[in-house]
Amino acid sequence: MGVTRAAGERRMLRLGAFMRPVSLHTAWWRDPASWPDANFNVRHLARFAQTLERGRFDAFFTADHLAVLNMPMAALKRSATSTSFDPLTLLPALAMVTERIGLIATASTTYNDPYHIARKFASLDHISDGRAGWNVVTTSNPDAALNFGLEAHVEHGERYDRAREFFDVVTGLWDSWADDAFIADVDSGVYFDPDRLHVLNHKGPHFSVRGPLNIARPVQGWPVIVQAGASDAGRQLAAETAEAVFSAPSRIEDARAMYADVKGRMARLGRDRDAMKILPGAFVVVGETRAEAEAKLARLDALVHPDSGLASLSVMLGTDAYAFDLDAPLPEIPETNASRSGRQQMIDRARREGLTVRDLARIAGGYGGLKMVGTPATIADTMEEWLVTDACDGFNVIFPTMPGGLDDFVDHVVPELQRRGLFRREYEGRTLRENLGLERPGNRFFSG
Amino acid sequence: MGVTRAAGERRMLRLGAFMRPVSLHTAWWRDPASWPDANFNVRHLARFAQTLERGRFDAFFTADHLAVLNMPMAALKRSATSTSFDPLTLLPALAMVTERIGLIATASTTYNDPYHIARKFASLDHISDGRAGWNVVTTSNPDAALNFGLEAHVEHGERYDRAREFFDVVTGLWDSWADDAFIADVDSGVYFDPDRLHVLNHKGPHFSVRGPLNIARPVQGWPVIVQAGASDAGRQLAAETAEAVFSAPSRIEDARAMYADVKGRMARLGRDRDAMKILPGAFVVVGETRAEAEAKLARLDALVHPDSGLASLSVMLGTDAYAFDLDAPLPEIPETNASRSGRQQMIDRARREGLTVRDLARIAGGYGGLKMVGTPATIADTMEEWLVTDACDGFNVIFPTMPGGLDDFVDHVVPELQRRGLFRREYEGRTLRENLGLERPGNRFFSG
Repeated sequence: MGVTRAAGERRMLRLGAFMRPVSLHTAWWRDPASWPDANFNVRHLARFAQTLERGRFDAFFTADHLAVLNMPMAALKRSATSTSFDPLTLLPALAMVTERIGLIATASTTYNDPYHIARKFASLDHISDGRAGWNVVTTSNPDAALNFGLEAHVEHGERYDRAREFFDVVTGLWDSWADDAFIADVDSGVYFDPDRLHVLNHKGPHFSVRGPLNIARPVQGWPVIVQAGASDAGRQLAAETAEAVFSAPSRIEDARAMYADVKGRMARLGRDRDAMKILPGAFVVVGETRAEAEAKLARLDALVHPDSGLASLSVMLGTDAYAFDLDAPLPEIPETNASRSGRQQMIDRARREGLTVRDLARIAGGYGGLKMVGTPATIADTMEEWLVTDACDGFNVIFPTMPGGLDDFVDHVVPELQRRGLFRREYEGRTLRENLGLERPGNRFFSG
Repeated sequence: MGVTRAAGERRMLRLGAFMRPVSLHTAWWRDPASWPDANFNVRHLARFAQTLERGRFDAFFTADHLAVLNMPMAALKRSATSTSFDPLTLLPALAMVTERIGLIATASTTYNDPYHIARKFASLDHISDGRAGWNVVTTSNPDAALNFGLEAHVEHGERYDRAREFFDVVTGLWDSWADDAFIADVDSGVYFDPDRLHVLNHKGPHFSVRGPLNIARPVQGWPVIVQAGASDAGRQLAAETAEAVFSAPSRIEDARAMYADVKGRMARLGRDRDAMKILPGAFVVVGETRAEAEAKLARLDALVHPDSGLASLSVMLGTDAYAFDLDAPLPEIPETNASRSGRQQMIDRARREGLTVRDLARIAGGYGGLKMVGTPATIADTMEEWLVTDACDGFNVIFPTMPGGLDDFVDHVVPELQRRGLFRREYEGRTLRENLGLERPGNRFFSG
């Protein structure tokens, strides 16, 4: 399965930070350790980026939505996600107040033109001196369609076909100019060498794009390609094109299976397995003792308003949970189209632990994925186990509160990881690609 | 014609800086007073923005093209415009290294989606604390169509119909949230007041956009609306919607006629004539004496390579000037479709002054619009004359070299304008709108 590691070679963790929204816990903004406006205050976001850089994080990662999230108003009005910055407008600003941390923006292939995307990421890569990454998403939120003139959401397979062609066009446009095309020879008056310019002339089922791009090749050749799709089509696109994958397994067994599957697909395509870093999302709550960490999380979970949790619970159960009595046990739920396993797990847990609807709403409104709650040592233990058993190459860390949870991680967990030799003390390189240990892609139209 | 000014009220000049490309003179990058990579070096651009802010300029203005410019390769390879940043990626970066100067980005209504444009400008306005402006263009470059999947360029009238509806959608999206919608009440857990949210539900001939926008209303209500169209449709759209207009008259009589026309259209629409600032482009070369300024320009013009000038000359004459003998007089030119007045002026001048094709190429490759070449005093004289005779409200200054020409202007012309009371010594306000003396627009869906 691809390249085997040399004996004695120590793998290091890669750490991204999930920063848009600044936390995925619905109550994060109500906690005393948080700044309620953190999601859309550029000064706060700059301070977070600088703290992450002090902690030697690989990247500041911004998710994105092309619509206000679709949920009942009772829950929506309690969510801090309804206002936040466009990632490709935010990251150039953060590039100017940081020096080494990578800057990864999500951008949809369903609701964009490849010429714009190629230009913007190339611009960000130049502005940041080679720190840009593109999280390629196909946009699964059907409300986005209504903001872009479509009556119906684009179907899943169709979205992935388009995404693949979109990727080919964007990378082709990035290769419009050889790295040494712009000679700017003052004496002769020649600004670029015409032999080092390629006109793409792409014509495909979804796109017709002539080119060339009107900006020099990115510093990194191409910005780092990131993906997060979990479906079969998503994994295949990632195996073909991605250099980092943000995944969302809750259990280590699932993570290992996904890791083996995606790296196996890479090997079958002839790609080196180390040419992609797989980073599961991890919600990390740090305390001096495990009890203190658990108390922090309990305090935060207690701030989940039932109306926020009922929205998530309704989705999980596939029925309108707002109709239930909050302080009664969960009533009988008819068969629905909801995911059977998630639905049944929630019903079983309610019966087993004798939980009320209010209890269930609190659970559903908290963070539902992989959690690490403990001391710096226990968190480092867990991260190490995941790394050395090929469940991941690192993590995309989600902070419970901002700045509180972020500061806890950088001040206490990062030093512990460094002490164990699991994480860098200094950045290895200048670009995101160099820090992630990824090769700079050659230009498909020019050698050298 | 609209509101008359109170007796004794002194109008002040408004100054924009034309900064993308950093100069419109084809040879700017070859001059010893220039940095050849200024167009795409963010550190240089940051230094220029800071110098302009020291000079109390109203705005840093970025033009844009959605393609590499279409010209013969003999000329294109000598042009520095083929690589430069996407404006909406550059300006957030510059927002972080400046505090007061306005940041105006050009964005096309023909090759964009209104939801993206509304989000990006709202994000820039928040990131810059209210300094964003949007230069609304319909894109006249037919090569852009080929980069966006269209075989033929969109026809002029159709582009303006679309632009008007695009503007209505974008401003409607900016008004999605009342200014006070986001209450972030930690105690009750309510992040925004649902009664202060409006869903646009726009359905028109060109666009169907539901909304709401997923970012709070811009700091300025709306970013400042800028336009540059000179056609009848362009002037009418400007009179209806624009708050600043970048124009390109060469002669003061033409500027006065255009000024009276556009401000007259505003009056007929019931708009206050001071609600729009008209700023002609002005190419300014500064010297300690007029002779020194003229020598500077002559040095720069001498750097225009014939192959660069022949491209412009070919367009002016409507024929392939590369076929002519460079050192011979201009041959007889057959009738063509080129603009008759520009063509005839060039032919008449060649005959009158006995110019060779090489001489004509040098003239055509220089800057062809309004020039001010002289001492700080003579330049201030000219600017004052234009201002007090209602030819303009200020200028969009084009620098001959970078940073040389920019430094000359800020260090020598700005103090002279300040001495005469024609230009601010300190910024009047915090936002671009406040500095330009423009009202903050109310929200069409919410009062107060």
